[in-house]
Order: sequence, then structure tokens, then C-alpha cells
Amino acid sequence: MTEPILLDYNNMMAPRLGGRGIEPARLDAAASRFRAAHEEVRRRRENGELAFFELVDQEATIREILAYVDVVGQDFDTVVVLGIGGSALGTTTLQNALLPAFWNELDDAGRKGFPRLYVLDNIDPTTFGAFLERIDLRRTLFNVVSKSGTTAETMAQFLIVRDRLARAFGDDAFKRHLVFTTDPEAGILRRLAREEGITAFPIPPRVGGRFSVLSPVGLLPAALVGIDIRALLDGARAMVERCDTPELGANPAGLFATLQHIADTALAAPIHVMMAYTDRLYAAADWFRQLWAESLGKRRDRTGAEVFRGPTPVKALGATDQHSQVQLYMEGPFDKTVTFLAVREFPTDLPIPHAYPGVEALAYLGGHSLAELLQAERAATAQALASQGRMNMTIELPGLSAHTLGQLLMMLQIATVYAGELYGIDPLDQPGVELGKQLTYARMGRGGYTAPPAPRPDPRWIAG
Amino acid sequence: MTEPILLDYNNMMAPRLGGRGIEPARLDAAASRFRAAHEEVRRRRENGELAFFELVDQEATIREILAYVDVVGQDFDTVVVLGIGGSALGTTTLQNALLPAFWNELDDAGRKGFPRLYVLDNIDPTTFGAFLERIDLRRTLFNVVSKSGTTAETMAQFLIVRDRLARAFGDDAFKRHLVFTTDPEAGILRRLAREEGITAFPIPPRVGGRFSVLSPVGLLPAALVGIDIRALLDGARAMVERCDTPELGANPAGLFATLQHIADTALAAPIHVMMAYTDRLYAAADWFRQLWAESLGKRRDRTGAEVFRGPTPVKALGATDQHSQVQLYMEGPFDKTVTFLAVREFPTDLPIPHAYPGVEALAYLGGHSLAELLQAERAATAQALASQGRMNMTIELPGLSAHTLGQLLMMLQIATVYAGELYGIDPLDQPGVELGKQLTYARMGRGGYTAPPAPRPDPRWIAG
Repeated sequence: MTEPILLDYNNMMAPRLGGRGIEPARLDAAASRFRAAHEEVRRRRENGELAFFELVDQEATIREILAYVDVVGQDFDTVVVLGIGGSALGTTTLQNALLPAFWNELDDAGRKGFPRLYVLDNIDPTTFGAFLERIDLRRTLFNVVSKSGTTAETMAQFLIVRDRLARAFGDDAFKRHLVFTTDPEAGILRRLAREEGITAFPIPPRVGGRFSVLSPVGLLPAALVGIDIRALLDGARAMVERCDTPELGANPAGLFATLQHIADTALAAPIHVMMAYTDRLYAAADWFRQLWAESLGKRRDRTGAEVFRGPTPVKALGATDQHSQVQLYMEGPFDKTVTFLAVREFPTDLPIPHAYPGVEALAYLGGHSLAELLQAERAATAQALASQGRMNMTIELPGLSAHTLGQLLMMLQIATVYAGELYGIDPLDQPGVELGKQLTYARMGRGGYTAPPAPRPDPRWIAG
Repeated sequence: MTEPILLDYNNMMAPRLGGRGIEPARLDAAASRFRAAHEEVRRRRENGELAFFELVDQEATIREILAYVDVVGQDFDTVVVLGIGGSALGTTTLQNALLPAFWNELDDAGRKGFPRLYVLDNIDPTTFGAFLERIDLRRTLFNVVSKSGTTAETMAQFLIVRDRLARAFGDDAFKRHLVFTTDPEAGILRRLAREEGITAFPIPPRVGGRFSVLSPVGLLPAALVGIDIRALLDGARAMVERCDTPELGANPAGLFATLQHIADTALAAPIHVMMAYTDRLYAAADWFRQLWAESLGKRRDRTGAEVFRGPTPVKALGATDQHSQVQLYMEGPFDKTVTFLAVREFPTDLPIPHAYPGVEALAYLGGHSLAELLQAERAATAQALASQGRMNMTIELPGLSAHTLGQLLMMLQIATVYAGELYGIDPLDQPGVELGKQLTYARMGRGGYTAPPAPRPDPRWIAG
């Protein structure tokens, strides 16, 4: 399945929305602005600032990963990723999209001998403790993912796991249960890898966490569970080539960025819903949520002026959220766009049997299938939203494969850096999370960090 | 664990936010408006319109449920809920909060003999088909939940399951694998229950889907997996009593509704994030998402005037989303409130071992615990947001139990009907989903439904 994905944005356009939505003339006018954004992205890429583009060419790394998987992979029936944010969301997306449902509940035969895969991206002891209780350490490989090696949550998990491994297997043998994914030179995990002889894969220096899914961050666990990582990169490469054009109408990433930017800044629609119409792409909507929020949510523009910018991404799932969120999307404020993630062909389907011929509210379903019903609901929801003047568009994958997913992930990453240009902000930094980290360090007694004391709560403003 | 939950809204108030946020005088002024809203809710409740309040007193139903569980429950090791929206989200919330993590992956002993519980709220064939492949039908009970019995997704699932059961066990024996939760008198499932002799539990007539978690919709599956449903209702009852006061400052549901309403309508903050700082309450944030969106997202107010109202609820998880969304919350537009869901005491904890004394970025963690780190991160995030003028509040549960969860669920339901009064809209209907349903029926060929033809897509606006 290597056909191109498509973007249908008819329902973003004013002629389809009874006058609401984007006027064609406005989109035409945006083409020259996009051309400049595209040129700037091209320049930054040549300057080495946008290294995620170059992840489509990493044959040496792929060979290293596959060699590791060949040698080490078969010793383990459980792979655990310890990481958070960009170190977790991409892997979860690949797992969700490309492995069968209920993977971790299948037996060895059902998983074709590949290991279970758990991505533990939180530090809740009621989850992490329960998890450690039930796994067989002897057959478990821990992939610790942190570029800097200073991420508090991941390091706390690592210390707990390392201690258990060392107690179980001794001071040396425990190391084969660990593999790091981290900076190629700097940072604590790299240092430990060197000093303790632990295998470590590199995250290229200028690839940030939220743009790292196609680096070893995502590729190593994907390869361990049998996902075709070459096909994933082939799909991503096809999208890079497709987005090589400065012509807005032919550049799907450019269109996505431009349409969302216009919706936010000109049409007061800063809420960008991504609604997957397959369970297999719900995690992709969550991955996009980090990409879009952390890249575009910025206090200052590139000139340093205060702008407090940034659309709010929201993940949703169809048909499920028709029974939760669509009432709001249909009737609430005109402050949203909805992007549907669709697949044209499902790999499996279930026929709905004929039954109860006398019961009209059941009988019509017979002879159809679940996929037909799901597709009908998606088309109906898109049409209903448009009929109420609600902007929506559809990213359609011909089917779900490593190649089409690679296209999708790359399209959204490129769209994000285009959007950074359109908003005039730096999409690669995240200065706003620094203060929270420092306050956490101070509360945890890390040397050199002092917190401004938290003001005492006023008891008037506590209902207890 | 029956202590009251508390609401700390210090960080919603202007004195704590450097002048942004809600002025105390404005909140004081809102007290009389709340008094009127409270009075109207009281009147509607007495009029029988708000029947979810009365779910705290249903001893007869509880006895029926427990009797069913005693007799039938032990025949099954897997319970499957077929339902969507309000028929699913409450049960998922109870399961997520009150069962150990990884429940469905535990063996019988780990589950203390209680069954696995799956809530299948979507019709994706790649999930539903995979699920049916791997369960043992002989030991599986299907709880079909739909008030009307016309929900297309649930009925399609039901037809598929019914067919498999009938083929496996014959035209009569299959019925013991089914239990319905539906209207006490009307609708197709009730009719089938009568005609085919299938057990059915009632959803009280004036209890809508999103207010049904404390009806048999949530109570039956909860009881089947051993959750203390009496304690759940005790907690809910305690909250009903606590919210019996028209004094805003003493009424946590009233405060929550009033603060959010002011933030939306007076301070241009229509995005209401609920961020759970425990994995065990992430589903509660999703449940709240339906409650808030579907109840308050309305085109018309009670006078019939077009208002296009409704805040957009967003679910988030701490600490995870600190590495995804908090950059936006810290630096983006001032268009959000964040409500933290916190638990004061975790039932289990994991110490972080001392290690690497020479590595400062790891050493400080030793001697602390995962719960300490998680609490420090929550407090740091709240403080950091407040320091940037970002409104936030915290709902703190003393611990996680059926009683405290019952309090929380009831508080948010009462807050929703208060908010309906403050917005001047009807929080109990959902007229906006009707069109999508009709378009789906038409596409599926249901008799009597014709769709306006979908306009043909303009190929100019497809990038493919």
C-alpha cells in the first residue's frame, strides 16, 4: 500500500459552507505567503536546522537497528519503553497503527513471536508498580529514551528498573536488559552507556523530541515488534518529495498549515480538532497534539515581541465522539476546525447479519458491514458539519500501512514547520516548560535549584 | 476513604494571577446569580426533570443487580459492554479508577476471580473483529447498553454478537450470554428482552445517557467486577447533600460551574482543560468531556434565540502532558482554564533508589518516591501556570475510592446543570446530533430516511 494520501479540503471553503469558511480569494492570496514560508523552510533545512527531514536517509542506522534486533530481539518477549512526550508518543502511534489490536494480550503465536510492547510514559505508582509486579524480568528489555538523560520522570523510572535488574541478575548481567536511545555524544545516558557498556542508539543532535518518531526513538521499538521501518521511511521520503514544491495547491503540508493558520488568525477558529475514524489512528491524533501545541504555542515571535500565540489541538475519535463531542462541534461557537483521519480500505471487515426482519430499526443494518457503517458515519458527520457552516477537512489514507503512516507523519511534521513560519514563531523550542521543571527540581531538593515559595492558599478560596 | 473532596480555586483569582483571572468582587457578584440557578435546579429536580439526582436512592435496583451478579456473574470470566457515549464512558471511568492497572491482563488470581471487563465503544472492524477472534464465547457475558435500542453502532455490534452466540449455543441457550440495560418500558431492546426472555436492567426514563453512570448503565458492570457500588452511591449522596446549599462559597459544584462560566463568558477562556494527575482519573476527564460538551454546546438558548454557546472541554494527563501541552498552556493565548484532578494519598508507592552519587542529575531523585515526584510536578505546574497569569484550580480527592469517585462524578454532574442555568441553555438535550444520524441512516438505506445529496467535491480543493 504505497499510494499517496490525499487532503480533501472542500469543506474548509466558503462556497461549501454557506459563506462561512475560507473565501477562495483568500486562499489564493495566501499562496505567495506560503511560497515565502516554503523558501524559508528550505533555507533552514539546508542550514541543518530541520534535521527531521534528513531522517528519511539513514541507511546505516537502519542496519544497526536491524542487526541489534536480529541478535538481541529474540531473547525477549516484552519490550518496555521508558520515555515521555516525544520519546513516547511516536512509538505509541506506530504501535497503535501498525500492530493488531490487543497486541499485548495475544499469545506468542498471535504475535508471530514478536515481543509485547509497553510504552510507560507516566510515573503514577499505581500503574508503574503494578506493571513491575507482573512482568518476567528475565524476558524483558527496557528501552530508556531521553535525549538529555535529565528528564526527571524517565530517570526516576530508570533508577527503579536498574535497581531491580541489578538485584535480579547481578552487577554485570543486568546490562543486556537495557538499551538507551539518546544524544550521540552528550548527556548522562550517553555517559552511562560508555562507562557501563550499555548499548545506545543515537538521536541526531538537531532532531527535537516531537520530531523524533522517525529516528531510533521510534524505529528501534518498531523494529523490535516487526514493523517494516524501511517502508515507514519510504513513505516519509515520498512525502518530503511531494512537499518539495512551493506551489500551495500541490503541497499537502503547505495546504494543511495554511488552512489552519487562516482559520485561527482570520476566522477566529483556534481549536483544531483531529478526529480519527479508525481506532488505529487515535494515537496519531495524540502525537499530533504535542507536535502542534508545543511547536506553535509561543509567547514571543521571532522578533521577540509578545504575541501569546498558538492554536489548541484536540484529539477525537469517530464514531465514538459523535456521541460525546459532535453536539458541540455542530452547535457551539464557530471556533473550530475538524480534520478527519480516514482510511479508504480497512484490512478486515465484519458483515452485519440479517436479523429481526420485522424490526425496522435493526433490519436496515443487515447485509452491510462495520466498515461501511463507520465510513457512512464519517461522511455523514462531515456533511452535517459543513451544512452548519463548520470547517472540516479530511486526510485520507488509501489504507493503513507503514508507508502510508510514514507519509502522514512526515506531512504533519512539515506542516508544523510551515505553520511556524506563517505564525512567525520558532516551532523548535519550548521555553515555557522550563519554569515548571525548575520548580519541580526545587521541590525535589535538587542542588542549585531554589523555588520562589508557593503563595499560601487563601482558605476563602477552598471549598473543602 | 469517605472524607470530602475539596476544590481549591485560589489560582483562578486575580490576586493570585497578577491581575489576570477573576476579581473577587466579580465572584461575589455572581453569588446571587448562582442562588437563582440553584433555586431553578431545585425546582426542576422536584419536577422530576433531573432524575440523576435520585439515583443515590435506588436500593431496590442495587439488590437486583447484586442478586444477578451473585447468580450469573460467576459463570463468566469476561464481561463485554457494547455501548457508546454515555453508555460507555461512565463504565470506563469506574474501571479505570477503581480496578488495578492492567486488569484485563491479570490472571484469575490477580483479578480475585472477578471477570475481565471490556468496554467496546467503537465499530472499527480492526478492533471488534480482533476482539471476537480471541475471546472464549462460552465464558463471555455481553452487556448491551442503549436506552432507545436504536443506536446504530451498538445495534450493529449486537447483531454480530447475537449471530455468533446463536450459532455457538443454539437458539435458546445463547440468551444467558446477554444482558440488556435499557429503557424500563419502551424501545427495541426492552421489546426483545420481553419477547426472547433476556434479562434487562432499567435506565430510569428521565436519566439521559451522559448522566447515567450511577444508574445500572455503570452499576451493573461495576458490580460484576467487584466494585463497591453502595460506596459509590454513598459518595454521590454525600455530594448531593453538600450541594444542597444556595451559598456559592460552600457549594463545590456551584463554584466549579460559576468559575468556568465567568472564565468563558467574561474572560474569553472557553477552553476548559481537565488534567488528571493520576492515570486512574484520566478516563474521568474523558467522561467529563462528554458531560460538559454535549450539555453546554448549544445553538439556542431557552428562549429560542441563537447563541452558539459552549465551552470546549479538553482532557489531559499529568505528568505526561507536561511534555506535550503545558508549553501551550504556559505561553499560548489566555483562552483556557486548567482543572487539576489530584489525589492526596496514593494507595501504593515506589521508592526511587539511591544511585550514581556522582551524577547530580540523577542523585537528587534517590530517597524520594514516584508519588512524591508526581505530586511535586503537579504543584510545580499549578504554581508555574499561576505565575504566568493562567487560571487553574484543583479538585483534590483525599484518596481514590468508590466513595470519593462517587463524590467527584456527582459534583461534576450537578455543576453541569448549574452551568446550564448560568448559560441559559437546556443542558439535557442534544439536537445537534440528529442531522448526522439521519444522514447516516440515509446512507445505510434505512427506510424513511433520505439525505440531501452530498455536494460533489471540487477537485481543485483536493490535494491527492
